[in-house]
Amino acid sequence: MNLPELQFYKERIEEALDSYLPSASCTPEIIHEAMRYSVCGGGKRLRGALVLIACEVAGGRWQDAMPAACALEMIHAYSLIHDDLPCMDDDELRRGKPTNHRVFGEAIALLAGDALLTQGIATMLNYIPAGLEQAYHRALQELVAASCTQGMIGGQVLDLAAEGKKLTLEELNQIYRWKTGALIRAALRMGALIGKGEPWVLEALTLYGEALGLAFQITDDLLDLEADPQLLGKMVGSDLRKQKATYPGLVGIDEAHRLAAEEINRACAALAPLAENGKVLIELAEAVLKRNY
Amino acid sequence: MNLPELQFYKERIEEALDSYLPSASCTPEIIHEAMRYSVCGGGKRLRGALVLIACEVAGGRWQDAMPAACALEMIHAYSLIHDDLPCMDDDELRRGKPTNHRVFGEAIALLAGDALLTQGIATMLNYIPAGLEQAYHRALQELVAASCTQGMIGGQVLDLAAEGKKLTLEELNQIYRWKTGALIRAALRMGALIGKGEPWVLEALTLYGEALGLAFQITDDLLDLEADPQLLGKMVGSDLRKQKATYPGLVGIDEAHRLAAEEINRACAALAPLAENGKVLIELAEAVLKRNY
Repeated sequence: MNLPELQFYKERIEEALDSYLPSASCTPEIIHEAMRYSVCGGGKRLRGALVLIACEVAGGRWQDAMPAACALEMIHAYSLIHDDLPCMDDDELRRGKPTNHRVFGEAIALLAGDALLTQGIATMLNYIPAGLEQAYHRALQELVAASCTQGMIGGQVLDLAAEGKKLTLEELNQIYRWKTGALIRAALRMGALIGKGEPWVLEALTLYGEALGLAFQITDDLLDLEADPQLLGKMVGSDLRKQKATYPGLVGIDEAHRLAAEEINRACAALAPLAENGKVLIELAEAVLKRNY
Repeated sequence: MNLPELQFYKERIEEALDSYLPSASCTPEIIHEAMRYSVCGGGKRLRGALVLIACEVAGGRWQDAMPAACALEMIHAYSLIHDDLPCMDDDELRRGKPTNHRVFGEAIALLAGDALLTQGIATMLNYIPAGLEQAYHRALQELVAASCTQGMIGGQVLDLAAEGKKLTLEELNQIYRWKTGALIRAALRMGALIGKGEPWVLEALTLYGEALGLAFQITDDLLDLEADPQLLGKMVGSDLRKQKATYPGLVGIDEAHRLAAEEINRACAALAPLAENGKVLIELAEAVLKRNY
């Protein structure tokens, strides 16, 4: 995903994450090392960048949304650590490196996930810019709702329950809406709330986020079949090996590409009321469609 | 711990927990069943009751602290579920019932713990009584700080690192201060903040909480040696089997009893400035010393 704006925000987010996370030399060192290993270990920072861009689009300053962007990145990292554990997906590689539990052991990986969820919340409570107390309260409500059992965790539960089963497209959509969609949707809404956007802006960004989230997940399914594993940083074909339901599995590769493009069109159409203001988000949506990692 | 006040608050907390937790008939059912299995599965509700009592002592209404009390109980329950997992303490029994992962499997137990942490935060964000927005913000900061790597999670990390090692009493105290002490201290501080207590009240309740927390953990060590397993609801002698450092192990049983009593005296002395107002907390401290489960 080569987009200059994304690169700019990615660098700012990584600096801020470094400042919000406890230092690796702080007792107990091992847990802080494990947290930093997963949070600071690369990643596109798509979710964090969406918070910052949505804040700007809604009329705020991106700097004011930084604690929220970092909280979202920490919560995303916690979900990956727990998802990779042996009792879940049992994955060995993530972003081209051994997964957290392969380096630090299962117990520390479990606790590092717990700590990142907790630290994400702490970041949104402790670094609120002046005058944004209420906006941060609402944004934190969004984040927590999107992370819970009618959001990300609920999606992981449905995903577990679906293993080895034949799903309908509607059932798969429900898993995706919760598992990855909820946090991406929340990213846009958090940014819009912190930017004090009007209700119609919040609504436009929400619709954009919903369509983008689904497109992102469909391209994820396609990358698992088509990507260069070096670029992707994890093994390809793992959905097939785990017999997971996917878009290409249900509708075929060509149709999956077409449906991803359709969602991207929907995402961009939702931004129409924002006119010129939505330009970066349109470019970002197009980059999601073309991404190769 | 037979204390009429504790029984009264315990019942109110259990009603409130039932109302704050998603219904077990709500999709995805299995995760809500697993959450309720551990939260609604008994327990003394000591931490929750401390929040409510501290709120009253500080001059507030206990009803106004109920979301905070329930959040604390959910976070306590999440920590027990994760602590019992095979990669941690690998325990089979908790409160006289099979542990969460023995009933629901490791993956759902992991997610149920994650969800209870998240739901605890959500409860404190979504049920704030009018006029207490700022107090709840500060109370949530206390809860999150006490749950993180310089609190409960940090204590679990030190506990893991200490396995099989010979500790000094000071090292053991540090583990206890974080692992169980931080949440008990936070309970008192959260209640005091929500009750809008004066700074000297917050200070007195903090000192009380610190001493009570240590006494509670020393009696826990003693119960693991001396309790009736039926009453305790878990196996006794597990610290010995796991070669964990404990107070009786380091200083002997009689000295451990004496030190627990000393902490209880310290706790009660801290309440002196509160005069009559501290009566329930003094009774509660005495009940902790005499507890047999």
